[in-house]
Amino acid sequence: MSNSHDSEREEGLSFQPKFDASGLVTCVATDAATGDVLMVAHMNDEALRKTIATGEAWYFSRSRNALWRKGESSGHTQRVVEMRVDCDQDAVWIRVEQVGAACHTGRRSCFYRKVEGEGGSIGLSFVDADKQFDPTRAYSK
Amino acid sequence: MSNSHDSEREEGLSFQPKFDASGLVTCVATDAATGDVLMVAHMNDEALRKTIATGEAWYFSRSRNALWRKGESSGHTQRVVEMRVDCDQDAVWIRVEQVGAACHTGRRSCFYRKVEGEGGSIGLSFVDADKQFDPTRAYSK
Repeated sequence: MSNSHDSEREEGLSFQPKFDASGLVTCVATDAATGDVLMVAHMNDEALRKTIATGEAWYFSRSRNALWRKGESSGHTQRVVEMRVDCDQDAVWIRVEQVGAACHTGRRSCFYRKVEGEGGSIGLSFVDADKQFDPTRAYSK
Repeated sequence: MSNSHDSEREEGLSFQPKFDASGLVTCVATDAATGDVLMVAHMNDEALRKTIATGEAWYFSRSRNALWRKGESSGHTQRVVEMRVDCDQDAVWIRVEQVGAACHTGRRSCFYRKVEGEGGSIGLSFVDADKQFDPTRAYSK
């Protein structure tokens, strides 16, 4: 198994992000205070560099095909406390201080529903789903 | 902005995973005890269903193109304490009780290197990088 891995990428100290066919890595943002996962998004090379240089989270939106500073419309920015990269360098984890809410629906985290399987059927239930802001106002500009 | 979103998928209680072109969703596994991100991997429909049904993490390996029960070779299984889904249902977050180590390199977490930018150059440093097991033994079977 280990033969198929790039040992320099896994054991080295050089940052060599492994971008996918669209030029992206996955980014997981967690709340530095609580450990909760706030969101999963993507970064291209420029978003990574801007995040590292500025200490604020930048992403690449696949739906809008555009670089995006988190909070540029809503004011709900993310200050990066720490960035880590995973073994094969195709994912980064940022611990952030979130201003307001991470999710465009107004919730603190995008993960506001629990998945539960009962007797063969799978359903969702809301958890920590209070809205911190009204998305129709925050994005009306 | 909100017009472009599927409101039933975002606000409803029906589990409608949004698989990508390869039939996968992203899965973030965090340590239920510490909140640390252990790994980022992928699940297909079958992996999701098996994870929910058994309470143990199953993934789909893109490199091996195969369903995979976490720990099936190494014994380092993940018991799922809670599963959540994000707003657009293309990512799940599982909080797990990790037996041993999540990373195939032997570390507890795949995120054992910090990314730092100093004076324009970006480098990595090891953090929480002690090996919990010897991967050459765990995968020698």
